[in-house]
Amino acid sequence: MSALPADALTDALADLVAALPDDVVVSDADRTEKYRWDRSQDPHAGTPLAVVRAQDAAQVQATVRWAAEHGVPVVPRGAGTGLSGGASALDGGIVLSLERMTAVEVDAECQVAFVEPGALNSAVKAAAAEHGLWYPPDPSSWDICSIGGNIATNAGGLCCVKYGVTSDYVLGLDVVLADGTLVTLGGPRIKDVAGLSLLELFVGSEGTLGVVTRAVLRLLPAQSAGATLVASFPTMTAAAEAVVAIRGQLRPSMLELMDGPSIRAVEDFRPMGLDTAAGALLVAQSDAPGAACAEEVDAMRRACESAGGSDVFVTTDPDEGELFVQARRLVVPAVEPLGELMLEDVGVPVPRLPQLVDAVAGIAERHDVLIPVVAHAGDGNTHPLIVVPRGDADARVRALAAFDEVMEAAIALGGTITGEHGVGRTKKAALPAQLGDDVMALTRRVKDALDPAGIFNPGAIL
Amino acid sequence: MSALPADALTDALADLVAALPDDVVVSDADRTEKYRWDRSQDPHAGTPLAVVRAQDAAQVQATVRWAAEHGVPVVPRGAGTGLSGGASALDGGIVLSLERMTAVEVDAECQVAFVEPGALNSAVKAAAAEHGLWYPPDPSSWDICSIGGNIATNAGGLCCVKYGVTSDYVLGLDVVLADGTLVTLGGPRIKDVAGLSLLELFVGSEGTLGVVTRAVLRLLPAQSAGATLVASFPTMTAAAEAVVAIRGQLRPSMLELMDGPSIRAVEDFRPMGLDTAAGALLVAQSDAPGAACAEEVDAMRRACESAGGSDVFVTTDPDEGELFVQARRLVVPAVEPLGELMLEDVGVPVPRLPQLVDAVAGIAERHDVLIPVVAHAGDGNTHPLIVVPRGDADARVRALAAFDEVMEAAIALGGTITGEHGVGRTKKAALPAQLGDDVMALTRRVKDALDPAGIFNPGAIL
Repeated sequence: MSALPADALTDALADLVAALPDDVVVSDADRTEKYRWDRSQDPHAGTPLAVVRAQDAAQVQATVRWAAEHGVPVVPRGAGTGLSGGASALDGGIVLSLERMTAVEVDAECQVAFVEPGALNSAVKAAAAEHGLWYPPDPSSWDICSIGGNIATNAGGLCCVKYGVTSDYVLGLDVVLADGTLVTLGGPRIKDVAGLSLLELFVGSEGTLGVVTRAVLRLLPAQSAGATLVASFPTMTAAAEAVVAIRGQLRPSMLELMDGPSIRAVEDFRPMGLDTAAGALLVAQSDAPGAACAEEVDAMRRACESAGGSDVFVTTDPDEGELFVQARRLVVPAVEPLGELMLEDVGVPVPRLPQLVDAVAGIAERHDVLIPVVAHAGDGNTHPLIVVPRGDADARVRALAAFDEVMEAAIALGGTITGEHGVGRTKKAALPAQLGDDVMALTRRVKDALDPAGIFNPGAIL
Repeated sequence: MSALPADALTDALADLVAALPDDVVVSDADRTEKYRWDRSQDPHAGTPLAVVRAQDAAQVQATVRWAAEHGVPVVPRGAGTGLSGGASALDGGIVLSLERMTAVEVDAECQVAFVEPGALNSAVKAAAAEHGLWYPPDPSSWDICSIGGNIATNAGGLCCVKYGVTSDYVLGLDVVLADGTLVTLGGPRIKDVAGLSLLELFVGSEGTLGVVTRAVLRLLPAQSAGATLVASFPTMTAAAEAVVAIRGQLRPSMLELMDGPSIRAVEDFRPMGLDTAAGALLVAQSDAPGAACAEEVDAMRRACESAGGSDVFVTTDPDEGELFVQARRLVVPAVEPLGELMLEDVGVPVPRLPQLVDAVAGIAERHDVLIPVVAHAGDGNTHPLIVVPRGDADARVRALAAFDEVMEAAIALGGTITGEHGVGRTKKAALPAQLGDDVMALTRRVKDALDPAGIFNPGAIL
């Protein structure tokens, strides 16, 4: 919160309102309300002084300069689909929304897109596709999440098992620093090692180091159509063994797992004939070109059968394949009716997936909490979905304990508390246990060097 | 240089000698001489106080603590194959050699290698291959360069057109900081967004932020055998057009160019029947699996022919293909007999390759300097090799002017002064023109936060 008394702050805000075009600064409670939370529904979210709905980099700069002058915290915000409270509003702070900065411009010859932070991931994919090109990163929320948020969290997704995460596609960034300076880092060059890796430092910084106002994103030639394989397993452990075996031989373009409770939740939510008796369902894709695709799928089938998989189904019909991918993506909405969700995204080295799955099952049982698990299994990245029946205060306490223990289990297995959602505010307490005091101190030193007054997203990560 | 007077420094060094095992600290001039230069033969390289040939992380820590206490600069050094003076010794400083830390341990299930910084790139490839795995990054110096140096420069290579650069394979680092603290960043996890991207900040930092004592490197399943295509072009411009067309459709695993002078130098150096009348030779590979490989090669052939290429030759014999790749790798040794080399590694957005090539030709003519050009063309990354006839002082002056102008030309085309060698000392003067004052100031802030006394590789980058 600002050091200024409330009256002085209100006067100061008038200066910002006057400096920006009409309706850029919004401070009516009924209009700012929806900017208080991201999708994590952080119960500690505050009430902002105002929301600035910036239209261009100059307005972002003006806002940051004003905030620096008055010591007002700034929470940058994209589409608000974050899952760890990284965009929770702060009492008396500014929410700096980038939702109106949505331009996407493709340079097909350079194979890059120049993108404003409020553009949706799906808009970049669509613009690239018009030129026969492809923007790979595909968080499950791809049709509602913004590129700015993707960059802030270094978002992953389903295809990153073969194609990498957001940082692999960020070639350049325009960033507004804590004093309002606008810097350009990188650009439409594939290889560039001139100077320190500052570009990379901003990717995944969750709005704590600067505000991205434009990104240069790398595009690839469009992906081959490929094939989809689905296999049932008696247990998640058996399915995880198949995952390790597949990864050792080849590079599938998708390698996802759903556990029994997830399968049944999806089937209840939208009946589509999934095997509700299965302990786990593996959904894999190969986009290898031509005949190699069938060879890859055959190798995956053999790996599944060797690990105890059955009912292996293969399709090269993209629509049919997409049905199974949708089933995987439907897990979160399908589980949501069962209660509020605390979404984890813990990860481990891939061979330790079975141990992590076992540990989560133990935690669920010990705390009497329902925890369906889906996983970007090929990357060792899992989503235990902790379900809190609505209005059950005792269940909430048990769920919070389970939330912490799942992170502890991941750390104990040499893993991470967050593979793609970010630390934000909901996972902050667990970060020191993963990183240790020395890395926390190093983090603090970098933060202080770039944002000495601490105006950017205070309370996130650190 | 240290603030201590020479006598006091000699006394202080005795403490370091006593603290470390026999023969770790070397200070005889005849033994330290070879540690003064990297491969750039920087004429401003100094004479070190001593060389510390560390055997483990604890010895690195002891050395850094001693250096911090006495204000002595530390230049970390791998195999000394750097091309931009990043490992030039400093008068009165310590050269911290990692050449004795060469352990490589592969965890095949996790698909990672735990590697000490002095291990050669080729040793990591060999260790991975024993498990059917592959470490992709392949600088042309792969059989003589160390992983520590690869990480320091974020080294590229030939296959990075499809498989990315060193940073894409660094999952974890142990780093000794400026106060001697040893931190572990990341680990054998494919996806991990817990905290700021500190790991990424150290990759490409050229020894200015810390000393890497261990890396966790990602491995992939072994690459398919593939096919090699070679095509002659009348001009580099025509060849560059073929490169742009190929990149737009597919992802070759190699896409290299040699210009006429490079071809002729190689053919003079080791006759192998190259077309010495050609203006450019394109060497491309596809590693697409199965029949898709032939399809990719056919598409590349058509793109070459459309752009004016001729004598298109294709082979699926790996040994025959390797001959052409060797021809490409031989350019530097083949040109070396013509004089001392100033190696550039400027890059531009790929469609601007023809303009860069034209600009370099103009610079060569204007300054009466021979500048053969080879290129990792698929990434827009070129190596103009400025030749300085030995003992010709006037030619040296002209070559230095050309060296600067090549970087200016790259910047003017929206490019970079260095795509893979690093800034070091030889390209430092040109860095502000590329990055601008604000990014230079940001760089300085990060450097000061991590190394406030400036003991790590002072004079490199900044």
